[in-house]
Amino acid sequence: MNQHIHGGDVYRYPDILDFSANINPLGTPESVIKAAEKGLHKIEHYPDVKKEELVTALSVYEQLPREFIICGNGAAELIFAVAWAKKPKKALLAVPTFAEYEQALKSTGCQIEYFYLKEEEGFAVTEKILEQITPEQDILFLCNPNNPTGVLIDLVLLDEILKACRKCGVFLVLDECFVDFLECPKKAEKKAHLTEFENLFILKAFTKRYAMAGLRLGYGLCSNQQFLWDMHSVMQPWNISIPAQEAGVAALMEENYVNLARKLVQTERNYLKGELCKLGLRVYDSRANYLFFRGPKGLGRRMLEQKIMLRDCSNYPGLSGGYYRIAVRTHRENEKLVSCMRQVLKEAADCGI
Amino acid sequence: MNQHIHGGDVYRYPDILDFSANINPLGTPESVIKAAEKGLHKIEHYPDVKKEELVTALSVYEQLPREFIICGNGAAELIFAVAWAKKPKKALLAVPTFAEYEQALKSTGCQIEYFYLKEEEGFAVTEKILEQITPEQDILFLCNPNNPTGVLIDLVLLDEILKACRKCGVFLVLDECFVDFLECPKKAEKKAHLTEFENLFILKAFTKRYAMAGLRLGYGLCSNQQFLWDMHSVMQPWNISIPAQEAGVAALMEENYVNLARKLVQTERNYLKGELCKLGLRVYDSRANYLFFRGPKGLGRRMLEQKIMLRDCSNYPGLSGGYYRIAVRTHRENEKLVSCMRQVLKEAADCGI
Repeated sequence: MNQHIHGGDVYRYPDILDFSANINPLGTPESVIKAAEKGLHKIEHYPDVKKEELVTALSVYEQLPREFIICGNGAAELIFAVAWAKKPKKALLAVPTFAEYEQALKSTGCQIEYFYLKEEEGFAVTEKILEQITPEQDILFLCNPNNPTGVLIDLVLLDEILKACRKCGVFLVLDECFVDFLECPKKAEKKAHLTEFENLFILKAFTKRYAMAGLRLGYGLCSNQQFLWDMHSVMQPWNISIPAQEAGVAALMEENYVNLARKLVQTERNYLKGELCKLGLRVYDSRANYLFFRGPKGLGRRMLEQKIMLRDCSNYPGLSGGYYRIAVRTHRENEKLVSCMRQVLKEAADCGI
Repeated sequence: MNQHIHGGDVYRYPDILDFSANINPLGTPESVIKAAEKGLHKIEHYPDVKKEELVTALSVYEQLPREFIICGNGAAELIFAVAWAKKPKKALLAVPTFAEYEQALKSTGCQIEYFYLKEEEGFAVTEKILEQITPEQDILFLCNPNNPTGVLIDLVLLDEILKACRKCGVFLVLDECFVDFLECPKKAEKKAHLTEFENLFILKAFTKRYAMAGLRLGYGLCSNQQFLWDMHSVMQPWNISIPAQEAGVAALMEENYVNLARKLVQTERNYLKGELCKLGLRVYDSRANYLFFRGPKGLGRRMLEQKIMLRDCSNYPGLSGGYYRIAVRTHRENEKLVSCMRQVLKEAADCGI
């Protein structure tokens, strides 16, 4: 029960350098921790069920009406709430992707069809997906950029997918949790389509953008008021703690911090990608704050012995052993990873593995 | 959307003296806030999905095996998770009671039957409920002491209900969130029956016991491992924030604080009950940290004008207008309530209402 199938298990490995969780490498902004601390002194009260200040701040930040916004105890809560509110009979998933979509869908008894992202196509979503979207499906989850691959969906293709979904009556959940780390997030974001497409639900998270995974805060964007109402009816009203609500408001002011992180991620991702390629590893085309690559089986275990944790992706549907994901961290940490990996791979080669 | 149907809305009424939420009158223990503060400095990491330290502390506190324990983002999250894991076709509710049971059940499409608690029977659960438990039902929610009435279920009757449920294959969710404020919690608690009764799920909360409603932490106790597994499969793994996990561990050490609160509640509940009776109000037999009474319609609104918030219970299924619930607070606050209510009732009487 509660097996740790995801990255970020720093609890069983306390002295580890954690490359397995995709968090902003700059760490949590001080202002966010301060705001949460302030919130702690009010916890004898229930949280605001209307999340009034947080929703107002999000409405300004996203430049969208308040009514389009729904907040979750992390984006993960909203994935389950979407599934329960929709109660889909049939779903389409482009795999490998984030495991919670499938878990949430299966928990409603939904049947799942897969669109397999292929290694020979660089794990990209291709036009073939359009043929697989049919009126028999109720819901499609897409992660853009995808987790664990970091691969972006072609902009024109994404528009076509959105239209195909509307035509077929398929609800599209577009997970943009990692969009903030792209070189130009505005190009990839689909929020401008929300009013036109009532079948579009966009998922976003504070978790990664502000390195506050441990406080839990995510949100969803959707113009379909009936659907948001249905989501509220499957969730408790007090789902966001007071510290998380107050931290969220403070976080949204941290524009500079996000810009700095974005630049750092671009530079360091390029550095890491170059170094990993030099080590003979096959690195895929990630645009996010993490890299996805293929290496020898057992690499994760060997790196762990060196106190560095990778995300072994062999438990993703559609993947076998030998695929790994690493977060892009600060330069010093990335250097440490590269140097350690060079040593581990050399030893493995010397042993003839 | 997100109408505030519960008590505790200090956000729309910031200068209010809040008697509408049933929180420990001593406020949050300093140790709990300190532990949560410490947790805030780790929030760049994901929370521990295994909640290892918290579950260990709960296991010691409840004297139950670790495997019996499931943690929630407040007890409210677990109410929904129970409903989604069980997917009941038919449920029985003893009303008036906490509104979230019905909301959670309805969100799964479950049909609901009611056992009406009657004013002429002091809103007590009576033996008649045994006739209403049938094999057609899948689940029964009982709150002991009940919210909003504070009335306790007779111990012998509760055992009979538990047996009747087992015989009929009905899953019993026993909400003991307010049990800690009873004069003798041990007498009412049913956790000793968990091993014998696999159809029993006990719900408990840190919220009220340690006045930490705004941080969100609750837990459930059950010996049925398959059912707990089913619950985990309908919930995200990161549901409890790091500050909440660490605060929970600290809270469980606060034995003295809970004992003090219990004594204060006994004394002050008696004081409040006496004063409300003197004011001519009909006060029911609450054993919890709140009182349920009948008064003139409009009393809630008039008290609100005086900056004191009661819980108007007219929106509970099974109740009409004129029923109220108030928390037991500190003596000075309770005196203020009584004095204000005396004035308001006098004015109402003078106006011939």
